[in-house]
Amino acid sequence: MTGNYSSALVENAVEALTRLPGIGRKTALRLALHLLRQPPEIAASLGDAIKKLRSEIQYCTICHNISDGEICAICANPKRDHATVCVVEDLRDMIAIENTGQYNGAYHILGGIISPMEGTGPADLTLKSLSGKVEGGSVKEVILALPATIEGDTTNFYIYKLLRNFSVAITTIARGIPIGDELDYTDEITLGRSLLNRQPYSGTNGPA
Amino acid sequence: MTGNYSSALVENAVEALTRLPGIGRKTALRLALHLLRQPPEIAASLGDAIKKLRSEIQYCTICHNISDGEICAICANPKRDHATVCVVEDLRDMIAIENTGQYNGAYHILGGIISPMEGTGPADLTLKSLSGKVEGGSVKEVILALPATIEGDTTNFYIYKLLRNFSVAITTIARGIPIGDELDYTDEITLGRSLLNRQPYSGTNGPA
Repeated sequence: MTGNYSSALVENAVEALTRLPGIGRKTALRLALHLLRQPPEIAASLGDAIKKLRSEIQYCTICHNISDGEICAICANPKRDHATVCVVEDLRDMIAIENTGQYNGAYHILGGIISPMEGTGPADLTLKSLSGKVEGGSVKEVILALPATIEGDTTNFYIYKLLRNFSVAITTIARGIPIGDELDYTDEITLGRSLLNRQPYSGTNGPA
Repeated sequence: MTGNYSSALVENAVEALTRLPGIGRKTALRLALHLLRQPPEIAASLGDAIKKLRSEIQYCTICHNISDGEICAICANPKRDHATVCVVEDLRDMIAIENTGQYNGAYHILGGIISPMEGTGPADLTLKSLSGKVEGGSVKEVILALPATIEGDTTNFYIYKLLRNFSVAITTIARGIPIGDELDYTDEITLGRSLLNRQPYSGTNGPA
């Protein structure tokens, strides 16, 4: 294959880029040729950013979020409500919630969800740290914001069993019809659940 | 934005990745999180491959192809026909032709095509090197394999004027109906040209 690109450097870069999810050989070659056309600083800064990302990253000792120091920016922020802890699967879900601008509490990053299919058990998650936090007594509410899948439900139930003997409120984010959706295009399970979990209408909880 | 990802390292990596074509913030974050889940060697080798790609790359002094040394693997290969030179826009077109397995000659990488819209003039291309090569007398045929666009046609004509006084055959790759295509879905210009450039039928030049 090296002869094909007539450069082992291009071949190495293409090979390394194709290991990323969703990037095939054609895209990888397009990216490599793009980098070759740019000033050398662009490739140097991208290469450095990628190397440093993995080698220098730390995890927050409180919420297990990715962090540059011992404690992440959210856990260190005195303006946030640290008595409310939102349990999420990973950083992406945390960012999604942050982007809503509706949440001012703290997070707890599980690092995955219980999935026998993928070989992820409770011991692989940061559950001990979560129960320790609740046992400490400073947490008033744990919000479960895990995916609406069987694995998510299993993990929700596991956490519920783990924490139910402590004096902490356990809540879960609302499941229902997405705002803007038609009823007849909604799947039966979501529609059924949204009927079971119907809410009192106050004239204020319609679409924003 | 840094507080959003709670890590300047992640932010830097996302920022650098979004400078690549076709990669937005969501994809960049997905790639960064993927790298964080992999062993450190994966990110280190990707980072190194990208840095080396740009800093150590050389260009073949004969065909201007990307190369690891003074002369690229194709120009250095004694089994290839160096009297036939195929003129292409860039490396990607060269790879596309190599992948057909139908060509055993040499290449000449122009490094672009004449495009007043993008500010690319004849002086930006490796045209002097091409005419020098032809003037040397070792080249018997120059095959023009440029895009079938106005810019490609302009560049073809420019090269034709540049080389027509030398004793060299100038050919261009065939334009016509792509193999497998229906006539009524083919655009009028391609269909019209394929009528003008009709070829004698020998029973052997049908679809492979």
